[in-house]
Amino acid sequence: MPKPFPLKAKGFHKFGDLIGLEFRKFERGYSQCFLQINEDHFNPHNVVHGGVLYSMADTGMGAALYSLLEKEELCATIEIKINYFKSVKDGILICDTKVIHKGKTIGVLESEILNEDIIVAKAYGTFSIFKVK
Amino acid sequence: MPKPFPLKAKGFHKFGDLIGLEFRKFERGYSQCFLQINEDHFNPHNVVHGGVLYSMADTGMGAALYSLLEKEELCATIEIKINYFKSVKDGILICDTKVIHKGKTIGVLESEILNEDIIVAKAYGTFSIFKVK
Amino acid sequence: MPKPFPLKAKGFHKFGDLIGLEFRKFERGYSQCFLQINEDHFNPHNVVHGGVLYSMADTGMGAALYSLLEKEELCATIEIKINYFKSVKDGILICDTKVIHKGKTIGVLESEILNEDIIVAKAYGTFSIFKVK
Amino acid sequence: MPKPFPLKAKGFHKFGDLIGLEFRKFERGYSQCFLQINEDHFNPHNVVHGGVLYSMADTGMGAALYSLLEKEELCATIEIKINYFKSVKDGILICDTKVIHKGKTIGVLESEILNEDIIVAKAYGTFSIFKVK
Repeated sequence: MPKPFPLKAKGFHKFGDLIGLEFRKFERGYSQCFLQINEDHFNPHNVVHGGVLYSMADTGMGAALYSLLEKEELCATIEIKINYFKSVKDGILICDTKVIHKGKTIGVLESEILNEDIIVAKAYGTFSIFKVK
Repeated sequence: MPKPFPLKAKGFHKFGDLIGLEFRKFERGYSQCFLQINEDHFNPHNVVHGGVLYSMADTGMGAALYSLLEKEELCATIEIKINYFKSVKDGILICDTKVIHKGKTIGVLESEILNEDIIVAKAYGTFSIFKVK
Repeated sequence: MPKPFPLKAKGFHKFGDLIGLEFRKFERGYSQCFLQINEDHFNPHNVVHGGVLYSMADTGMGAALYSLLEKEELCATIEIKINYFKSVKDGILICDTKVIHKGKTIGVLESEILNEDIIVAKAYGTFSIFKVK
Repeated sequence: MPKPFPLKAKGFHKFGDLIGLEFRKFERGYSQCFLQINEDHFNPHNVVHGGVLYSMADTGMGAALYSLLEKEELCATIEIKINYFKSVKDGILICDTKVIHKGKTIGVLESEILNEDIIVAKAYGTFSIFKVK
């Protein structure tokens, strides 16, 4: 049985609230979060700041990996790389994340970020898995 | 003569304002931005969300590379990778960024993010350089 | 019509020959290369050196992207990131590569490297696309 | 006292021998290896294959991190990212590697690869540190 998700769909953490991030799906080794773009997300070029898309991926990865952990385990981001394909201005951003490898102490994940059904960014992350002390 | 920086130290873009990012230094091929940590930056573990540190690096890289561009040139993030060394809870985050390679169409940059004089993350980015149409 | 592949299945370049790399498939936006593991590929721990798997991905990416280029275009690696999941000792390594994004001047690719039907590494690359002078 | 380096300057592993890699310096948290370029290193464009430079970085990182390990510890590459700045054709390649972060289970390293005093590539790696069973 998957570990119960400790995070509410909304309001689960301050930074998620600040940028308007919400979770929609949470399955074993998979998560989906989304965000309604508004002007607060804009960079100096008046398109969505790369940090917004990155934050979706980082949060989505934590959630997807968390679903595969044992009761006494936690995870933390070691490193994430993100590639941007297209700038985005409005609409909804959806971030689909899946675990592609899970060892005892390392998890590797991929996120695809879509805007109006077009992939606008892809992220690749490595997380550490460790026991709660 | 370096290209004049079009960004005010504060209030230069909406997402920067949302997370409280300010620029302190802006030289040829170098930038420094900082941010006072508050609870709005927290992830579910009550430490600063990785997306906050990432956003400092992404913004700092744009600013550092911009200083080396010609009048009619712009730049955009192709990809950034960030490694986290230590979680942070309070104080000030400082992000030092330098251009380590600049070709005609590609710039490569590195950012070091410090909290209380300790390096807590390091980011490596590739930007495209292109002419304004 | 895809650009005709200028590379022979074998003997197409010196370094490929040195490590025993051969191409098996070459389609639009996709390539597959393989390699029979031998002791010359070993690192000090007597498993295949990470550089062997990396070289498969780098070469496979060039081939996959090349298939989508115009007659007067060439491509070059800007950066590649590779994650290792499992060490390998013998058998055949197969590297499947696909283009996941192609812009005018940038291509983004992913490679999966398999050993006995198990994914042992995954690589993510960014290439520049430019016109032959 | 640093852990004694178990690798001879030359002939320490098969793949290193295959590509002509030799170590020159080995200090605490630092290594330097080099390689005399020859035609066996060439890619289809008749410049040194990216896999050669990558292999220098991967091997150099293992050596640099190894110097900081305890007697019963080993390390393995989790992931490496490499950025290329310039193609190389002849002369000597030198790879300087330093540990930039060392935790209990994770090490982070950077390598600079030089050809005729010019930086031609830079690599960033994450290694796992674990006890010998």
